[in-house]
Amino acid sequence: MSLLVTGSIGVDTIETPFGTRDGVVGGSAVYFSYAASMFASVRLVGVIGPDYPIDLANLFKGRAVDLSGLETRAGSKSFRWHGSYLKDMNEAQTVSVDLNVLAEQAPKIPAAFLDSRYVFLANTHPQLQLAFRRSLTQAKLVVADTMNLWIETTRDDLKALLREVDGLVLNDGEARLLTGEKNMIRAARAVISMGPKFVVIKKGEHGAMAAVGNEIITLPAYPAEQVIDPTGAGDSFAAGMMGYLTASDRFDAATLRRAMAYGTVTASYTIAGFSLEGLAQADKKRLDARLETLRASMAF
Amino acid sequence: MSLLVTGSIGVDTIETPFGTRDGVVGGSAVYFSYAASMFASVRLVGVIGPDYPIDLANLFKGRAVDLSGLETRAGSKSFRWHGSYLKDMNEAQTVSVDLNVLAEQAPKIPAAFLDSRYVFLANTHPQLQLAFRRSLTQAKLVVADTMNLWIETTRDDLKALLREVDGLVLNDGEARLLTGEKNMIRAARAVISMGPKFVVIKKGEHGAMAAVGNEIITLPAYPAEQVIDPTGAGDSFAAGMMGYLTASDRFDAATLRRAMAYGTVTASYTIAGFSLEGLAQADKKRLDARLETLRASMAF
Repeated sequence: MSLLVTGSIGVDTIETPFGTRDGVVGGSAVYFSYAASMFASVRLVGVIGPDYPIDLANLFKGRAVDLSGLETRAGSKSFRWHGSYLKDMNEAQTVSVDLNVLAEQAPKIPAAFLDSRYVFLANTHPQLQLAFRRSLTQAKLVVADTMNLWIETTRDDLKALLREVDGLVLNDGEARLLTGEKNMIRAARAVISMGPKFVVIKKGEHGAMAAVGNEIITLPAYPAEQVIDPTGAGDSFAAGMMGYLTASDRFDAATLRRAMAYGTVTASYTIAGFSLEGLAQADKKRLDARLETLRASMAF
Repeated sequence: MSLLVTGSIGVDTIETPFGTRDGVVGGSAVYFSYAASMFASVRLVGVIGPDYPIDLANLFKGRAVDLSGLETRAGSKSFRWHGSYLKDMNEAQTVSVDLNVLAEQAPKIPAAFLDSRYVFLANTHPQLQLAFRRSLTQAKLVVADTMNLWIETTRDDLKALLREVDGLVLNDGEARLLTGEKNMIRAARAVISMGPKFVVIKKGEHGAMAAVGNEIITLPAYPAEQVIDPTGAGDSFAAGMMGYLTASDRFDAATLRRAMAYGTVTASYTIAGFSLEGLAQADKKRLDARLETLRASMAF
């Protein structure tokens, strides 16, 4: 079973209390593919410019990531993001952003990817997410991410998307903004009423919760002592979760609980280093070990 | 095995988005005793004035709470607190506080209570907590609570107390203030280095974590959809936890994890109503049922 992801591929500059990294690899589709490939074969769909400074084929070497949906668009420039966590490790401040190729036409999904059964639509304009979703007619599970910008500026498009996807992943602030509910259980139920079968709310250092129909899932974060760079934590969480669902080929509540636990431990590797440095230390065996540590820390 | 608690007995006025209650029963020792009596026999030590408007003997009727350590002090006035959650359900704003009898001499621990094995020192001046602690020479487990005021104004006294108690319970903001660590795992380890065998950090809607020696415990909150009045949630959490430890007569990490889960579900009843109205709906059987709901919501 393979897992398709559409999302950004970026060049990041990141400032945290632990230092600065300039021109490192980033973007939701990159974090997602890198992490999810520990669980399942990943099909990456994204677009960069010829200026992209990192060799992605080399970056993904030895990983189960199919890059045939990666477009290098002549005459365009790559997406660049400069973020800072100097004020708050829990929320990036965008110092500057150059959408460049992300503001242009979306990349095409290769014909060979159109039979994808598991799909993650990383955060982008909901109209674009809906177009992707509709073209993937064989999909068994489609999960979307979103962000404040789309909730605030394209709410109707987002609501149209929510009627056609199976799951939504978002953070607590976004859930509050989307539903007007401060209580996360009520917020989750409100999202369910908009269409998806399940919603997963990421709470950073406070863990994650979900509603699957009437059922509530709640998980603490992995007890991480050192957070070096939170960039990509949310995408890595989604990757561990979607990777496990894909590998299991099911998405009932019990499977989703375990998938979220894998998301939790996957993200715990991401935050331990800049860019992909933390995730590079992870493998399935180490994720399994952390899963047991997490389980032990909350067993009663 | 019986459990002694020293703490405040108050008359509260509480404002939340769900309404206002004037002149209702409150105070850490009251919430604690009311909740802990579902697990173990409780010995209450506290002081009120003759003006106290609520019949405490009647309030605790049918509950395993020994009130022989309750002093009604002639010529003094009862502690009163007026708090508001209109701005933030997660943090009370004190509208007014009249310490009254709490600012006077501490109540005496009755001779018959001096053999207490399990002790909870609810939040008060750390010198007073230390005096209580030292007089309870038979104690097997002494756990203290504290607050920002003492961390800021009597840090040395608090540190002296921490060298002589077995456990500390505090919230995340207090843990940050006490240790200077933003990361809660590091904060917990820093508290351990000050003396106690374990520290429990309450995170409100985000659950709780603890360090027991080198071991970390992490638990989500009970998925509560409706929070009417958070007053007493922290005391109720401590009560469920201490009540279970007392009933078990042990406090190793595995027992503490289960004790914290009981604290979690006990607090989930407290927040569902004003003053003691929520807790009044709880009994051991219902707590056990919620324990299973909590377990199911996080099983992977």
